[in-house]
Amino acid sequence: MLESSEQALYASVTGAVSMAQRRAIAKTITLLESTRAEHRRRADALLNALLPRSGNSLRLGISGVPGVGKSTFIEALGLYLIERGHRVAVLAVDPSSSVSGGSILGDKTRMEQLSVSEHAFIRPSPASGTLGGVAERTRESMLVCEAAGYDVSIVETVGVGQSEVAVAAMTDMFVLLQLPNAGDDLQAIKKGVMELADLVVINKADLDDAAATRARAQITSAMRLLGLHAAHDESVWHPQVMQLSALKQRGVDEFWQLVERFRELQSANGKLQRRRRAQDEAWMWERIDAGLKSSFRSFPPVRSALPGLVAEVRAGRLAASVAARQLLEMFHHTDPNTNHNP
Amino acid sequence: MLESSEQALYASVTGAVSMAQRRAIAKTITLLESTRAEHRRRADALLNALLPRSGNSLRLGISGVPGVGKSTFIEALGLYLIERGHRVAVLAVDPSSSVSGGSILGDKTRMEQLSVSEHAFIRPSPASGTLGGVAERTRESMLVCEAAGYDVSIVETVGVGQSEVAVAAMTDMFVLLQLPNAGDDLQAIKKGVMELADLVVINKADLDDAAATRARAQITSAMRLLGLHAAHDESVWHPQVMQLSALKQRGVDEFWQLVERFRELQSANGKLQRRRRAQDEAWMWERIDAGLKSSFRSFPPVRSALPGLVAEVRAGRLAASVAARQLLEMFHHTDPNTNHNP
Repeated sequence: MLESSEQALYASVTGAVSMAQRRAIAKTITLLESTRAEHRRRADALLNALLPRSGNSLRLGISGVPGVGKSTFIEALGLYLIERGHRVAVLAVDPSSSVSGGSILGDKTRMEQLSVSEHAFIRPSPASGTLGGVAERTRESMLVCEAAGYDVSIVETVGVGQSEVAVAAMTDMFVLLQLPNAGDDLQAIKKGVMELADLVVINKADLDDAAATRARAQITSAMRLLGLHAAHDESVWHPQVMQLSALKQRGVDEFWQLVERFRELQSANGKLQRRRRAQDEAWMWERIDAGLKSSFRSFPPVRSALPGLVAEVRAGRLAASVAARQLLEMFHHTDPNTNHNP
Repeated sequence: MLESSEQALYASVTGAVSMAQRRAIAKTITLLESTRAEHRRRADALLNALLPRSGNSLRLGISGVPGVGKSTFIEALGLYLIERGHRVAVLAVDPSSSVSGGSILGDKTRMEQLSVSEHAFIRPSPASGTLGGVAERTRESMLVCEAAGYDVSIVETVGVGQSEVAVAAMTDMFVLLQLPNAGDDLQAIKKGVMELADLVVINKADLDDAAATRARAQITSAMRLLGLHAAHDESVWHPQVMQLSALKQRGVDEFWQLVERFRELQSANGKLQRRRRAQDEAWMWERIDAGLKSSFRSFPPVRSALPGLVAEVRAGRLAASVAARQLLEMFHHTDPNTNHNP
């Protein structure tokens, strides 16, 4: 049961498109982001009430190094989609934002036109600590936006640390933006990120068309080598590489056609649905793991023994597996001999 | 303190090279592989006693698809090393071996000459269940072999599932074997594995030298694109690609020169030592995570609620993060509100 203030929020979030709705979404997300236990309890109840209305957006992850033109790309895409009757939510995962002070999307002037459209909702990255916590708030914010009728969710990441993995784990399609450098100068793609990409977009292709074409060929060949691009089965999406210029608004329509093609294929073969289910279950376990580890580390006997045992392991005086078993035994739930008897 | 039977094992393991020593190593590993709590306790004590003598081998991980010639390569390398006065331990991680019935290295005739050398110790993969468990036993077996004076440890994996990650996480240098196919036919490298490789070896280069050379160029270019091959800093090892023929015993010396070069560079710049420390600490946490998750799943209130909550999450009726919080609260250690008070 929702409390009355949450009932009002629920009504506003799921209500007609208006400034009031966007304010209600923002207020709901603020509630989700609160770390107070009482707020969390209310947020969970609201989230569960909104959940049946969520899920009806195409979830797009967008990644790329600073300078690749993510904001310009998202603005061009967002405006293109709004012209065609879509409603676009733009969220972000940037666990560094609390450190750097400025979060991506924090400066809405970077998406000047999109941010003033009543059909767009733009929210900067939650500025809380861990990547897991930031990703959790962003996932939940996306559900709220979906319940409010936004049918395209764009989740941006600056691509520091493991944030791409987190974004790929909450989106239907993961897009990696690249610059059109060529040959040895082609900027290195971060370890493991290429393998997340459903689509690689070489942005700023207007700067050097020949270089963009070469970069496309190189990336295509690398993807083939990595087994990501073998298009033998036509009923399944295979990662592709395309060029565009967000600044000149060239190629945005081709981009969206590819996204639509992705959605058609992966809906027809069932992979889209399976990906979401697997994401939900994996996310549940990810949060459980994080919670278990956190309570383990803060359990007093473990907390006092941990530094000494870690030092022993580091110094090579204690085998890592033996240290793990010793610590687990301190955490009595996990002692296999007690078998959970009181 | 070791019990008397373990004292005898300790003496035999750390004693002179002989058939008796190899039998003592095998017996120790059998003790490590036992799942009985009493055996485990004794094994831990023995492991701790042996630990100060361990660590003195170069740890080589070897991976590649079936048919790439891993056994032939390991036999050629092992014999080459023994001729030069080394002692070689060959271990394996194959979590599928209990399913398939036959484990890699199970058939010692595949390394006919190496298996009869008194300077080689060959042990098939532990045939127990999870990858984590199999990897744990292999890591510990490696420590025992090191304590027995083996100065090169080779850990083989068939490359199913996540076993390459586990092997890379317990070795100093990870080697990926490839076949010399060319162009589009170049066999796809499994997702994520290329990024683990310190050295890619194109084996069977004698079959088609031109194809092997093309494959080498392609893999080098893909590695560069993935940021794995940018050799700007000469004091640091950068992954390389080489060709050889294990069957014709061509290139084994060049391979070992590269390994020696790797060891020199990474020892001088401190990366080898840091990698081992990080591996040990990561392994400790990996085992703690596995232990916490296992006791969480078997905790009665969790065990009875879990299937229902997972079904709710899968059906989209319960947010994954809410389900995680509900389950964590059942596991009372992890309830943030109780703050671990009794």
